[in-house]
Amino acid sequence: MDTRRLVSLFLLITTLALCACQAQTSRSGSEALPSWTDGPTRDAIIDFVEAVTNTSSPDYVPAADRIAVFDNDGNLWSEQPLYFQLIFAIDRIKEIAPEHPEWRSTEPFASILRDDLPTALAGGEEAILQIVAASHGNLTTDEFRDAVEAWLETARHPTTGAPYTRMVYQPQLELLDYLRAHGFSTWIVSGGGVDFMRPWTEAVYGIPPQQVIGSRMKITFEVKDGKPTLFRHLEIDFIDDKAGKPVGIHQQIGKRPILASGNSDGDLQMLQYTHAGPTRTLCLYLHHTDGEREWVYDRDSHIGRLDQGLDEARINGWTVINMKEDWLTVFPSDE
Amino acid sequence: MDTRRLVSLFLLITTLALCACQAQTSRSGSEALPSWTDGPTRDAIIDFVEAVTNTSSPDYVPAADRIAVFDNDGNLWSEQPLYFQLIFAIDRIKEIAPEHPEWRSTEPFASILRDDLPTALAGGEEAILQIVAASHGNLTTDEFRDAVEAWLETARHPTTGAPYTRMVYQPQLELLDYLRAHGFSTWIVSGGGVDFMRPWTEAVYGIPPQQVIGSRMKITFEVKDGKPTLFRHLEIDFIDDKAGKPVGIHQQIGKRPILASGNSDGDLQMLQYTHAGPTRTLCLYLHHTDGEREWVYDRDSHIGRLDQGLDEARINGWTVINMKEDWLTVFPSDE
Repeated sequence: MDTRRLVSLFLLITTLALCACQAQTSRSGSEALPSWTDGPTRDAIIDFVEAVTNTSSPDYVPAADRIAVFDNDGNLWSEQPLYFQLIFAIDRIKEIAPEHPEWRSTEPFASILRDDLPTALAGGEEAILQIVAASHGNLTTDEFRDAVEAWLETARHPTTGAPYTRMVYQPQLELLDYLRAHGFSTWIVSGGGVDFMRPWTEAVYGIPPQQVIGSRMKITFEVKDGKPTLFRHLEIDFIDDKAGKPVGIHQQIGKRPILASGNSDGDLQMLQYTHAGPTRTLCLYLHHTDGEREWVYDRDSHIGRLDQGLDEARINGWTVINMKEDWLTVFPSDE
Repeated sequence: MDTRRLVSLFLLITTLALCACQAQTSRSGSEALPSWTDGPTRDAIIDFVEAVTNTSSPDYVPAADRIAVFDNDGNLWSEQPLYFQLIFAIDRIKEIAPEHPEWRSTEPFASILRDDLPTALAGGEEAILQIVAASHGNLTTDEFRDAVEAWLETARHPTTGAPYTRMVYQPQLELLDYLRAHGFSTWIVSGGGVDFMRPWTEAVYGIPPQQVIGSRMKITFEVKDGKPTLFRHLEIDFIDDKAGKPVGIHQQIGKRPILASGNSDGDLQMLQYTHAGPTRTLCLYLHHTDGEREWVYDRDSHIGRLDQGLDEARINGWTVINMKEDWLTVFPSDE
């Protein structure tokens, strides 16, 4: 090969590489978020991300400050007919009941053991807190992690029959990836238990344990038989819901997010806190409008109620995701 | 230029690049940690890092699990003659005293305002907690951050006259860099206040806010005059010291560290927790032995006492850093 051929080859390769690069760039505009309908909701997300990542934009935000927070229940995975973590709690109560003969005559445990869930939950929040404490406490953090992992292996959703970790929203998985590809760090901020989520969020959402914020049981450090362990007590230490969400964000991140994504009034304060930040922000409310592919609920739901949030979204110009219209697919395909 | 010349040039450049690469590699062995004496302490650190990062080593640990935790006071920066945060608290009490006429006749405030520190601190832990609460609470998180930043600008150490952020240990800065260059994530786990550290740890240590774990005031989310804010109360929510350290680590990281670095009995449980992990671990205790360049103190010190820790280090084979022998320099040079 002579010099000119070598130089031509070099130029050809360089040109091809540049073309590939440009294709990549235009792709991020037209082919990003493939499960999202091409329309104003998807446009709002892409416009925001392009504005805060463009160094010559007045809305530019450095990567270190591109904090995106996501609620989990009803926002990254489904939450009907009951929070999945509550189903775990009920299953675990049944599993460990032989160690607690007193539960046969104590509510709400007695009703759970008779499979009478309506009576068990009739005690409202107080009953739920008792179920959570009894099923999530009185063991080490390692034992609890093992219990969550074992449950996820075999548990199936009562109406779809799917493993719970398949009941996640494909468009949100794409949004998480898209944000990370644009320098965002992605965080979960959930009313659910932090130690219930951490065993699986990295595999399912690409979110590592240290980026999961949630409710916490009281935990103490103890040396038992010479072995240092962390022990979970029968007491709830912190509830990461409503006004607790901005507090949890501050405790764990120490920075104000620029993007917040939620689906219920429990996320309202997280969105208010984000919206009040000094840079351009994006607040997303997922509206459950799809009774065929998922569930329909909002202002009157016993779970994931979205009432005041819908009103504030209108007032503040937040982006409401209409699940039925804005999502081409809801759950990941099975292949 | 003919083909052979071009090919020769290409080969030459490739060879040079490879040589540069190899130089880089051997440098990491012989020239890493330049402020550390070439001896067993430095060797222990390098041996550990090489073992856990070598994919063909039985001690290999994936990067995601290479969590390194560092105490701050007396471990990354000095802590004599008083914790620097306590000096901040005292300065702030004096600054806001005009808003609190009642302090002129209430201890420990009255003694602080008379510059009689021994009397102010004679009340022991109770007095210190009162000083911390009054100086760290009753304002928003943004206002507190501004107060810390303003103080750091002008405050100077009482005996060295240096800005506090220059009283950091050069060998530890090198260790942090060395660990990060080997895929570790570096975290602060301090008894100090998390919001006192976060404004400056990234610039000084390369540790971002979300990787700082510390003691916390009670914080609530409030909408004041239509503005969402986080308000710091006059109440301590969590003390990240002693048995609190493994709890703080679990709350914020959700993973057990493989390297822990501390200097006092307040770090003992953090080292025990790390040492008990399933992989190879490295536990470091910094022993303050250098009265000329820094301070000498251990078993009887009122601040940063290292007593039980020294005994446990011997029993468990932890690495004790002898400041006088192991560090060629203590503080960064001024250029």
